[in-house]
Amino acid sequence: MAVRQTVEPTLARSVRLDDGGVLILDRRRFPFERVWVRCATAEDVAVAIEDMVTQSSGPYFAALFAMVLAARDAANLPPADARAALDRAGARLIASRSTNNHLRKAVAVVLAEVDAAGPVAGADLVAAAARGAAVGDERYRSASRALGEHSAKLLPDGARVLTHCWADAYLIETVAAVSRLGKRVSFFCTETRPYLQGARLTAETLAEMGVDTTLITDGMGAAVLGAGEVDVLLTAADRVTMDGHVVNKVGTLGLAIAAHAFGVPFHAQVQAPDPAAPTAADVPIEHRAGDEVLHTLGVRTASDKVRGHYPAFDVTPPRFVTTIVTDRGPFAPDALADYQCFQDRQDYRREGP
Amino acid sequence: MAVRQTVEPTLARSVRLDDGGVLILDRRRFPFERVWVRCATAEDVAVAIEDMVTQSSGPYFAALFAMVLAARDAANLPPADARAALDRAGARLIASRSTNNHLRKAVAVVLAEVDAAGPVAGADLVAAAARGAAVGDERYRSASRALGEHSAKLLPDGARVLTHCWADAYLIETVAAVSRLGKRVSFFCTETRPYLQGARLTAETLAEMGVDTTLITDGMGAAVLGAGEVDVLLTAADRVTMDGHVVNKVGTLGLAIAAHAFGVPFHAQVQAPDPAAPTAADVPIEHRAGDEVLHTLGVRTASDKVRGHYPAFDVTPPRFVTTIVTDRGPFAPDALADYQCFQDRQDYRREGP
Repeated sequence: MAVRQTVEPTLARSVRLDDGGVLILDRRRFPFERVWVRCATAEDVAVAIEDMVTQSSGPYFAALFAMVLAARDAANLPPADARAALDRAGARLIASRSTNNHLRKAVAVVLAEVDAAGPVAGADLVAAAARGAAVGDERYRSASRALGEHSAKLLPDGARVLTHCWADAYLIETVAAVSRLGKRVSFFCTETRPYLQGARLTAETLAEMGVDTTLITDGMGAAVLGAGEVDVLLTAADRVTMDGHVVNKVGTLGLAIAAHAFGVPFHAQVQAPDPAAPTAADVPIEHRAGDEVLHTLGVRTASDKVRGHYPAFDVTPPRFVTTIVTDRGPFAPDALADYQCFQDRQDYRREGP
Repeated sequence: MAVRQTVEPTLARSVRLDDGGVLILDRRRFPFERVWVRCATAEDVAVAIEDMVTQSSGPYFAALFAMVLAARDAANLPPADARAALDRAGARLIASRSTNNHLRKAVAVVLAEVDAAGPVAGADLVAAAARGAAVGDERYRSASRALGEHSAKLLPDGARVLTHCWADAYLIETVAAVSRLGKRVSFFCTETRPYLQGARLTAETLAEMGVDTTLITDGMGAAVLGAGEVDVLLTAADRVTMDGHVVNKVGTLGLAIAAHAFGVPFHAQVQAPDPAAPTAADVPIEHRAGDEVLHTLGVRTASDKVRGHYPAFDVTPPRFVTTIVTDRGPFAPDALADYQCFQDRQDYRREGP
């Protein structure tokens, strides 16, 4: 069977570095308008992240490239001053979205490459930062690719998949891997109110990749599950605790409970479980402004007599979860300690005799 | 304790008869605009129903009053011709929304009163039709009032209630009865995409009635249930089968399953179970145009690459239902045959020796 190639969707490379700065596709307006925001400095990138020009994995790539911009700006300084300028830029980027671990990792990988180069300035500094950004870029993409391949193996040929919100690189890599395996899948996407990431990002990306895609409202998941129209529930997770709780965009919990009631497996994708979160009690749930629920794309949906409520995430207990799919393969939700053991063994091999 | 009076909300009397015709509040634009559509003839009313100017119980009242308009128009005809004109008007009204049993009942109650008056014309015909409309109006309101009272008894004082879509007279009468009992309740309402009946009709009406009301998106129900923020799930039902399946606006099923998973009771309100539907297989589910999912209040929410899917109702199996609340009191979902027995006993008493 010929291996099918999928089309790379717009959102696969929606943050780019060029000689003039960092270009970020404005996800707030996608897909209705395709507008790239140009950031000339690391500060511009931090502001763009704060303004939600990009989200999900977007800030990670934006921060990698912003550190290259910071290196360019510091290239004429003595090495120690340049290094201090990079630290300041990194701190500013990390502060642009406080709950996002991605930003800390992006900054760290660039600084590690700069430090490995020794005290450097000028073109050497910029080259070291660019290498760091390239390492960070490849690290994220290869982990996502591995995760996508493990996910694709879990999907039966012909699977009708229900997803929620926007799984970004995990989704794109899963679809690409499904295609490489010669399988076919189709998707139901929930629209994911209030920001419609499912309608605007997920459905559009799947359609761009040539996947048969059907959009439903957030209330319709149980109906399609109950009608036998879904074989697998598949979502990303913002965090997975070591005891198997899945923290993801609000709405995931209801779908997981309904899938469980109708005997449909739920696979949650995360690069790695979070060793800093042994249990669900260790994950504070972000509550956003209730007013965000009272609008759709800027149009008022309820009168000013009404109060909104917006818990941004919900927590799915492990009894409603079939599998946690990571970059190292699938794990039962009660066996996530094995992820860490596997990492330790890898580390041992890498550093061993 | 003083009995508190609730304010009558706008939607409690949103179809009115006056000398010039029938006035129907346009629910498509409520609450952002309060526009009354004037219908001079029964045909105008049928068109307004077809155009969804009103929905839920609105078409029932509109049809009652439309029959009075038809009697006015036929007042100068000989009795037999006038009666034939009423039949034609009734048939036209019933055809304006084919799945709605309400319309058939509204037409029948007016014709019964006209027929009881014997062959009539002129002012007598109009008076008979008006009496029929009044009987039909009172019949619906008193059944809703009884249902509301039975519902209110099921709600603990201080109950935090989650509802979905728009329960219309059942909701209004429940809140009024809660108040008469000296209890307090608060509500979470789902917005109910794609038409936002929860955001526009339910939340607005509850706020008008002075009830503490919080709006959430359709994906947040399980999150508030799981967080222990809800004591009761309460919705209307479009139909309830004799074996206890609840057919209601899509989204009800997911909420019912989540409520069950977290030990929260689900009470579904319906005037009576449907003897024409012994099981769920007897209820065809209306699928509306998928395109309706791709917009919110006329604004496009996904690109034209994407296909929508819109099962308008879902079916909640009795294992996820605690109580069916009717105008004759609460029933367990496996004991609905008792509703009919009770009716038969009533009929026996009414017609007995």
